[in-house]
Amino acid sequence: MAHTADKPVVGVDLGGTKVLAGVVDREYKVLATAKRPTKGETGVDAVVERIAKTVRDAVREAGMDFSDIAGVCSAAPGALNPEDGIVRLAPNIEGWEDIPFAKLLSDQLSGTPVFIENDANLGALGELTLGAAQGVKNMVGIFVGTGIGGGIVLDGKIWRGSHMTAGEIGHVVVLAEGPVCGCGNRGCLESVASRTAIERDIRLGLRTGRESMVPELLKQAGRERMTSGILAQAYEARDPLVYEVITRAQHYLGIFIGSTINYIDPDMIVVGGGVAEALGEAYVEPVRAVAYQYAMNRKDARNVKIVLAKLEDHAALLGAAVYARQRLARRS
Amino acid sequence: MAHTADKPVVGVDLGGTKVLAGVVDREYKVLATAKRPTKGETGVDAVVERIAKTVRDAVREAGMDFSDIAGVCSAAPGALNPEDGIVRLAPNIEGWEDIPFAKLLSDQLSGTPVFIENDANLGALGELTLGAAQGVKNMVGIFVGTGIGGGIVLDGKIWRGSHMTAGEIGHVVVLAEGPVCGCGNRGCLESVASRTAIERDIRLGLRTGRESMVPELLKQAGRERMTSGILAQAYEARDPLVYEVITRAQHYLGIFIGSTINYIDPDMIVVGGGVAEALGEAYVEPVRAVAYQYAMNRKDARNVKIVLAKLEDHAALLGAAVYARQRLARRS
Repeated sequence: MAHTADKPVVGVDLGGTKVLAGVVDREYKVLATAKRPTKGETGVDAVVERIAKTVRDAVREAGMDFSDIAGVCSAAPGALNPEDGIVRLAPNIEGWEDIPFAKLLSDQLSGTPVFIENDANLGALGELTLGAAQGVKNMVGIFVGTGIGGGIVLDGKIWRGSHMTAGEIGHVVVLAEGPVCGCGNRGCLESVASRTAIERDIRLGLRTGRESMVPELLKQAGRERMTSGILAQAYEARDPLVYEVITRAQHYLGIFIGSTINYIDPDMIVVGGGVAEALGEAYVEPVRAVAYQYAMNRKDARNVKIVLAKLEDHAALLGAAVYARQRLARRS
Repeated sequence: MAHTADKPVVGVDLGGTKVLAGVVDREYKVLATAKRPTKGETGVDAVVERIAKTVRDAVREAGMDFSDIAGVCSAAPGALNPEDGIVRLAPNIEGWEDIPFAKLLSDQLSGTPVFIENDANLGALGELTLGAAQGVKNMVGIFVGTGIGGGIVLDGKIWRGSHMTAGEIGHVVVLAEGPVCGCGNRGCLESVASRTAIERDIRLGLRTGRESMVPELLKQAGRERMTSGILAQAYEARDPLVYEVITRAQHYLGIFIGSTINYIDPDMIVVGGGVAEALGEAYVEPVRAVAYQYAMNRKDARNVKIVLAKLEDHAALLGAAVYARQRLARRS
């Protein structure tokens, strides 16, 4: 019989729109994945059931039996306590407030050990252990997608803060009195630099008659939402509207990163998430240029590396696998 | 002969305009102080000589001999390395770039051990050990004066960052594209919430004919500069111009603190410095109200305490005494 440490684990990336599960072996190879829509509107129990099914699908896809799995870790988008397994509040999934998520999921998975952690924290842990920030002591991971999440690593460990809510960088204000944010305040980083902010500003431009290839790209793709892929296509083609809007978003992200250098002074900033992945190095380069201008100590600013994340779509999933192994090791 | 641990130490608060030295006994009682203008324009060596004289004055004032002193610690306003004793850059004192300050001062003080540390870090350490934040694990100290300095305490220790430059909160941007800051960028916290920013906006109002009691108060005090004391007098009298300008500064400081709750999630924020001391609780209350609105998790935001600093003028000096004792204990 294999030791727990040799058995694969399942990492889960639970988001507002989809659930992604992956079976990950002890060398952090992803053996198989499975995916389902989240459908938050169906209620907490139904969502947990869908997650459990997705986990079992991934295990089956890997040609394994569920008893081959040492444990499961799920990322969740929101404030949660990884020690008691309770999600305090996940604003992007309907009704997720004070939910004993780890226990509910474990009950659906024959009592297998289930751990949970914030998705951006796991993204940062993934990059730290397997990605762009290997061996780095102090790091801030920034994940730009529908929202903007952050994971802080200090002295090689995830910094959770005093109330498990640290790293909510999407709601750090960079442009006071700026656009209204989903949180109800104005000028949060998320309100000026997320994919949602970019889409809002492009739609505003289109409504006022500015020319852009975006409507044609949406029609071709049969989509309503401006995915990161569609934005990347238009940006690369130097579509004037898209290029201007994304350049502005990069400017604000650069200002935030410059502020972070002044405030926290890390070794490295890792930029990931859907938007960064789709645009690649072309996205990070202008961000970097602004950030170094906003660093107080300009002479030495470049000591703080600003790099693209490496794990792409699998950052949270792999981070979840790393965290599951850490927690299982603590038990044995 | 008294043990080193029983002997007093001298704490020094070196600023852009004045040097304050204090003899501090082992119970952290300030036995005597002395003061001199900094006169940065006289050159590094002359400034160090003036600091040494001020230290000796304070010791004499305490009725002691310099051999009674266990060691000296000086705060300095800028980026420095407390381990090698070198000031990298103190922008408010002419020519202070790559200065071996600890060694120069020790040479002027008969070889007595001299330690150095950033002034805001020492302010935070003082509040943590002797002031408003006693027993607190995670804390951000904010010192509002001519500029805005910050000291971060994580897990009970000063957080210096990867390159000894953490805590430069005066240059965290809250209002991108806002007023030009001394650092050359726009919209830094310092450019919208420092005493300098308040004075700039009041002068602008006066120039355009707005009524205010400030010119009369300046005349009475025989001053050109709007000191924190003069601002406090006008604020308390509800002078419409001063009240509006300070209210705006409080708003931006509140936004910064809300962002800090979201980013770092500390147990406590301590607000000190000349402006906060002069205005007292009346200054902190509106700041607190804004900060809690900008905290992401509004339900629990009040778990993060936002309080006035307690050590007033002596925060950096007492922090320096605490740090001197810590470093001396490490040696013995």
